[in-house]
Amino acid sequence: MYRGEAAKVLGEAKVGDRIRVLKGERSYEGVLMPRSELGDDKHVVIKLDNGYNIGIEVTGARIERLAQAEVAKGVSFPEPEFSPEKPEITILGTGGTIASKIDYATGAVHPSFSTAEIINAVPELAQVARVRTKLLFNILSENMTPEHWKKIAREVAKELNGGAYGTVVAHGTDTMSFTAAALAFMLKNLTKPVVFVGSQRSSDRPSSDAALNLIAAAKVATSDLAEVVVVMHSTTQDTACAIHRATKVRKMHSSRRDAFKSINALPLGEVDEEVRLFGNYKKRSEGEVYADSRLEERVALFKVYPGVSPELLEYCVDRYRGIVFEGTGLGHVPESLLPAIERAREEGVAMVMTTSTLYGRVDMKVYSTGRRLLNLGVIPGEDMLPEVAYVKLMHVLGVTQNYEEVRSLMLRNLAGEITERTLANAFY
Amino acid sequence: MYRGEAAKVLGEAKVGDRIRVLKGERSYEGVLMPRSELGDDKHVVIKLDNGYNIGIEVTGARIERLAQAEVAKGVSFPEPEFSPEKPEITILGTGGTIASKIDYATGAVHPSFSTAEIINAVPELAQVARVRTKLLFNILSENMTPEHWKKIAREVAKELNGGAYGTVVAHGTDTMSFTAAALAFMLKNLTKPVVFVGSQRSSDRPSSDAALNLIAAAKVATSDLAEVVVVMHSTTQDTACAIHRATKVRKMHSSRRDAFKSINALPLGEVDEEVRLFGNYKKRSEGEVYADSRLEERVALFKVYPGVSPELLEYCVDRYRGIVFEGTGLGHVPESLLPAIERAREEGVAMVMTTSTLYGRVDMKVYSTGRRLLNLGVIPGEDMLPEVAYVKLMHVLGVTQNYEEVRSLMLRNLAGEITERTLANAFY
Repeated sequence: MYRGEAAKVLGEAKVGDRIRVLKGERSYEGVLMPRSELGDDKHVVIKLDNGYNIGIEVTGARIERLAQAEVAKGVSFPEPEFSPEKPEITILGTGGTIASKIDYATGAVHPSFSTAEIINAVPELAQVARVRTKLLFNILSENMTPEHWKKIAREVAKELNGGAYGTVVAHGTDTMSFTAAALAFMLKNLTKPVVFVGSQRSSDRPSSDAALNLIAAAKVATSDLAEVVVVMHSTTQDTACAIHRATKVRKMHSSRRDAFKSINALPLGEVDEEVRLFGNYKKRSEGEVYADSRLEERVALFKVYPGVSPELLEYCVDRYRGIVFEGTGLGHVPESLLPAIERAREEGVAMVMTTSTLYGRVDMKVYSTGRRLLNLGVIPGEDMLPEVAYVKLMHVLGVTQNYEEVRSLMLRNLAGEITERTLANAFY
Repeated sequence: MYRGEAAKVLGEAKVGDRIRVLKGERSYEGVLMPRSELGDDKHVVIKLDNGYNIGIEVTGARIERLAQAEVAKGVSFPEPEFSPEKPEITILGTGGTIASKIDYATGAVHPSFSTAEIINAVPELAQVARVRTKLLFNILSENMTPEHWKKIAREVAKELNGGAYGTVVAHGTDTMSFTAAALAFMLKNLTKPVVFVGSQRSSDRPSSDAALNLIAAAKVATSDLAEVVVVMHSTTQDTACAIHRATKVRKMHSSRRDAFKSINALPLGEVDEEVRLFGNYKKRSEGEVYADSRLEERVALFKVYPGVSPELLEYCVDRYRGIVFEGTGLGHVPESLLPAIERAREEGVAMVMTTSTLYGRVDMKVYSTGRRLLNLGVIPGEDMLPEVAYVKLMHVLGVTQNYEEVRSLMLRNLAGEITERTLANAFY
């Protein structure tokens, strides 16, 4: 439904009415189309007599109501027309606020994700690319599992190999960084952009960030980047988005629009009217993308804290092939956990150490506790986020379960997840 | 041992030598005392003929060697003299870098914590207060357990009730925020400052933050504050410290000196030459402090992530009386965990929801997942840090195991751990 500035300018005009929009020296005449709540409050969408749908910014515009709607209900979204010279991108829907909250003026509450509906919601997208959409599934991101990661990875590879210039994955924000990191490890020979995007504010709230994020994501999907990234608001202002490397990003606020932050790294770029990339990013090239969807799911992320029970770790040693510790400080655990860690080593369970501080890197040579853990075969996770090390260990154990190979792969920078030691402390 | 600037100015002079320090129009004559590695590189300490020990800043000073030491080894630290009008504070040692790394020029490696040694290491302390020291135990903070928290709480109460104007607790940084939060909940009718302090850099490194932190902590211990706080470097510069409320602070970097940050709150103040307090803090008053050391240790901190095993939660439901979830986003878990949560409710296990984003607060009414969890009796943890909610739940379950009382206490602001809703999003 129209709200805010658009509603004010529309006055009495209702969806289905024939209206005239006067803006500067131009005037547009057509039928007022429904607008999804995903859209901002600055545009009205009308269907011109030639069948085209256009979005017009209402700032400085005046609207005349020419005729009342004959049938206000049941207006469907026409297929949008795209300029043939624009690059083609695919937006894959997986659920979450950005995909599922399109509640139409017509009363429909189905979680639609058709191209027509997306373009109606965010008409600016048509200026960026020829958009194709595909709803893979529609789940809240807290219900995302490694099985979903595999499906998304395969679908992204299919789209990119099928000719898409880039892909956007619309995803709930809760676990977006896990899925994005998983794809960063799974997609081999990536030659085009894979852009994760979500919305922190449900679109029924006036401060929704959905439209700007989606437009920015589409721009990045047509950029020179050949990496998996997350594109979300960089500030609370509705003006610009940051481009975060999938393996260095974390949701750091429960509700703010600028919740996503690059940790131990700078963002790869920013987007407002245009995309500005900086730093060392992998550039677009040619070649088939391959989705290596082997994942060892028997991996646990084990949080270390005073009073943590050694029995809990024993339980994990019995059931998992890999354990990522979210340790304290430079990578420590209480000595009460050492017997279980010793047994884990004997049983061939791969162990990786990360830090609960999130910022900074582990350094297990400084204190005796760290050195003991190194001697017990615990692999230092460098400056990897605990969540990223978890996803990476699933990937690595999917490839090999040989300890030396696992160790070597965990210490190697596979997808930008490890920042050079000399740089790590600068980004805080 | 002397290093850096002090070593340069000392030249050939060795510990035990009789020297003269010329600075401006003043000159000091005495025996060069050993200096612990905890000390900075800007002071030399000499024992004057009147028996006093003084620290002299070497900047702009010149040193003459008057006589060689007769016995360079075995010099012991004399008892320092304090000005009787200074307030008395107690520094309690528990271990960690700040207490255990005092490696003396005499070759001793014992983890000493005598007043004489501390004052020798950081002579500026004597300008702040009459210092008494007591080594409670000497452990790395990753080995700290709830039993240690109880001991520290009881000792702090004893010191404060015994006449100390304030207390400083020297603690390893890894789990300092857990212990500090535990004391914030355990110390009832707190009328004086309890100041936790540590060191991020081992004192054998030139960039050690130990001295400044300790001096700042002593100043806060003589201030108008009647709360449990953490005092650590506020920037990487060796110039000022921040005063963090114990229930709102977290170690956010593995190695930087400014690793501790207030989360969802402003610091309570800062310290350079003097202590500046701001915000709403509890003021010093009169009255006996009481340590309520009841803690239910059967509490787990359960991290939620994609692929987390429901069996792991079932295991916890069987063994714990309380579970704090580090959920996703506004306070969510995968629906695969719901059966275990339902069983936890039936078995009377108290459950509290926090968010892995750390910043922001949970809001379980926005999405269906949150509403389901609320219906299952999960208590929203507001903007509490997961670690703080964990410590608080141990405390609350130590007091009562009645669900309604637990719920009421968890939702009530007991020690500054819950920030008002209107303020929470501002601090990011």
